[in-house]
Amino acid sequence: MRAEIVTIGTELLLGQVVDTNSAYLARKLGQLGYDTYFRQTVGDNHRRAVLAVSLAMERADVVIVSGGLGPTEDDVTRDVVAAAVGVPLEESEEALAQVTAYFERVGRPMRPSQRRQALVPRGARVIPDPVGTAPGFVWEGADRAVVALPGVPGELKAMMESWVGPYLAERARSRGQAGVIVSRLLHFVGIGEADLEQALLDLLHGRANPTLATYAGTGQVSVRITARAADKATARGMIEPVEQEVRARVGAYCYGFDDETLEAVVVRGLARRGWKLAVAESCTGGLVGDRLTNVPGASEVLLEDVVAYSNEAKQRRLGVEAALIREHGAVSEACARAMAEGVRRSAGADVGLAITGIAGPGGGSPEKPVGLVYMAVATPAGTVAERHRFGGDRLHIKARAATAGLALLRRCLLEAG
Amino acid sequence: MRAEIVTIGTELLLGQVVDTNSAYLARKLGQLGYDTYFRQTVGDNHRRAVLAVSLAMERADVVIVSGGLGPTEDDVTRDVVAAAVGVPLEESEEALAQVTAYFERVGRPMRPSQRRQALVPRGARVIPDPVGTAPGFVWEGADRAVVALPGVPGELKAMMESWVGPYLAERARSRGQAGVIVSRLLHFVGIGEADLEQALLDLLHGRANPTLATYAGTGQVSVRITARAADKATARGMIEPVEQEVRARVGAYCYGFDDETLEAVVVRGLARRGWKLAVAESCTGGLVGDRLTNVPGASEVLLEDVVAYSNEAKQRRLGVEAALIREHGAVSEACARAMAEGVRRSAGADVGLAITGIAGPGGGSPEKPVGLVYMAVATPAGTVAERHRFGGDRLHIKARAATAGLALLRRCLLEAG
Repeated sequence: MRAEIVTIGTELLLGQVVDTNSAYLARKLGQLGYDTYFRQTVGDNHRRAVLAVSLAMERADVVIVSGGLGPTEDDVTRDVVAAAVGVPLEESEEALAQVTAYFERVGRPMRPSQRRQALVPRGARVIPDPVGTAPGFVWEGADRAVVALPGVPGELKAMMESWVGPYLAERARSRGQAGVIVSRLLHFVGIGEADLEQALLDLLHGRANPTLATYAGTGQVSVRITARAADKATARGMIEPVEQEVRARVGAYCYGFDDETLEAVVVRGLARRGWKLAVAESCTGGLVGDRLTNVPGASEVLLEDVVAYSNEAKQRRLGVEAALIREHGAVSEACARAMAEGVRRSAGADVGLAITGIAGPGGGSPEKPVGLVYMAVATPAGTVAERHRFGGDRLHIKARAATAGLALLRRCLLEAG
Repeated sequence: MRAEIVTIGTELLLGQVVDTNSAYLARKLGQLGYDTYFRQTVGDNHRRAVLAVSLAMERADVVIVSGGLGPTEDDVTRDVVAAAVGVPLEESEEALAQVTAYFERVGRPMRPSQRRQALVPRGARVIPDPVGTAPGFVWEGADRAVVALPGVPGELKAMMESWVGPYLAERARSRGQAGVIVSRLLHFVGIGEADLEQALLDLLHGRANPTLATYAGTGQVSVRITARAADKATARGMIEPVEQEVRARVGAYCYGFDDETLEAVVVRGLARRGWKLAVAESCTGGLVGDRLTNVPGASEVLLEDVVAYSNEAKQRRLGVEAALIREHGAVSEACARAMAEGVRRSAGADVGLAITGIAGPGGGSPEKPVGLVYMAVATPAGTVAERHRFGGDRLHIKARAATAGLALLRRCLLEAG
């Protein structure tokens, strides 16, 4: 079964709002075994929205339209779907009862304009909105269905989970096309996309099911293994041997799976060893601490993070000797080592992580250009250091450096056993 | 002039990555005076991507394609654009030189597969990638142009700002269609969206040109005034009186304009006074330091940032007395004040900013619930403190707290004259 998503909303089209509904809908459709090949976004314009929905109906079995179900004149979706499927709009008693009930529940008067929300294309089934005021609907033709959902993410998700998901699963089943698509994501640091692809070349090509693909993030790369099968267990069984093969080849660089972040893996690794961490940041300016403390429970493992931007702070807070900075400079392997050891010692931590570099745009020189970053991790087993040279602008260099620092820390935790 | 965005990437289509590039591109196109009516997303599939690009070329003067320019077999965009415009691919010396230079700069060997990145449709102009390895290109026909950019957001933005933006402006100008859309953004903290809307109600409705709209961000609200005119000066002249009226009503909450961030305003305010800042963070975990150091030149004003996550660190690094923490708790106005004064004193700074709170999901209690955050700013004139109660999840609370802390600092700088 093929599905296509059409999102309607001028605020999406003009980029004033990032379209997160599409990603959510696409994931749900995949889990339900629907293939998605195209996605379209149009503004609150009747003619162009009809074009988009009609095109989607030509190439998909199910069209999901999101947005434009509110009470205002801008909300064109009811008229658009009615025009695209060729039936008039009619007031639905069921939808009207739901809209009325909503206003009774919240104790606000219902405006006359809100009565528009009870209109649906003739013959459409009403989808209850358990959260807000905008009922959705499904129009069903002989071999096509159009599902209309509100654009407010909370309402869309509630309706998708409670009604549309089961409906789509049943629709696929009743057509003998039940199935699921399961994806497994593997996340890598310390290896480039090209090297990863080289190592997996034979797996990446010529496979129909499961399929493999790589994609690059900021300082990291991911591999996606996707299987299609009659049910989840079968799909997982197909993914398993491929995942094992990938991990046998490049597992050393793999830090996590699916929704796992590098910082969550690091926090978990520290917690498992009962180790406390202290961080000393220079060019990353607090980004490492910010990322670590995005992980719930980070307070169990992170004692402190000293953003020692000035040389004076590196000396006073971290005990880096003035002579060392004079001799090697603040951006040097020696300084990174001294910072990692200094923060570990002064915080009474088991592990110290330090990053020092030049994020730019100013401050670079021929010997120490913008993008040069040193990092070090001090553990009971000793101190290791790395030198990196990152491209890009200030924010990009900060992000790459933070990721590389967390990756080095992860490696040291692994080696510590 | 009409533009259409086509994003290419299976990870976008399947919802594994949220498409933020589209929103960015749409905003930039609007600022350049281009109308956008449709947006399409397709996977890494040659045939379907050619369909999408061809459809976009039928209805737009400029098609922006993003994604699929990497070195791997999945990266179909070069072939897709060549097929859609009907010319063969050729290796570009200029692109090859750029790819080669990138690998020399970062000191890594170039793989044979990376040479693919030097292929462009015959006759296309190469767009330098100042950040990564993937040059983009522009193919220009008599009345159509197709711009191909990488999907990595940092690379896409860098190329859009440095090359594609000026190119598109010139293209519109050379066709006598140099109509512009100029937007003026005013950013506010300390006032909610509903209150802002109430204050500007008559300005927000019934205006065709310029238009006004409000947007809620995380802990801040923006007003966008947008004018369409033949040239920038005329558009700005239309915006000016509306902006004056907005500022006359709610100017006290306005911290900045257009691309200005709150952290940039704070860094500038400190620099103007020749003041040095030291920060002490607890629940924000480094986010304030990260945001401040995103501003080029932050090193001139930020001495250090101590992320004192543990009580022990608050005592040792910031000189907060153990008795104070015992009596009031680490999340208290007294502790926020002591942290701000302590970090100011120990760092030898002119100003100290401190934030302490409960980001959740754990750690809350009936008296001190998740979302409770205290912040304080210590200056030569004394110390001021604020209590906040934020809703939302851990990341949202961190973000709101960091914004409120920077807003408090800004207000103290203003009051210091």
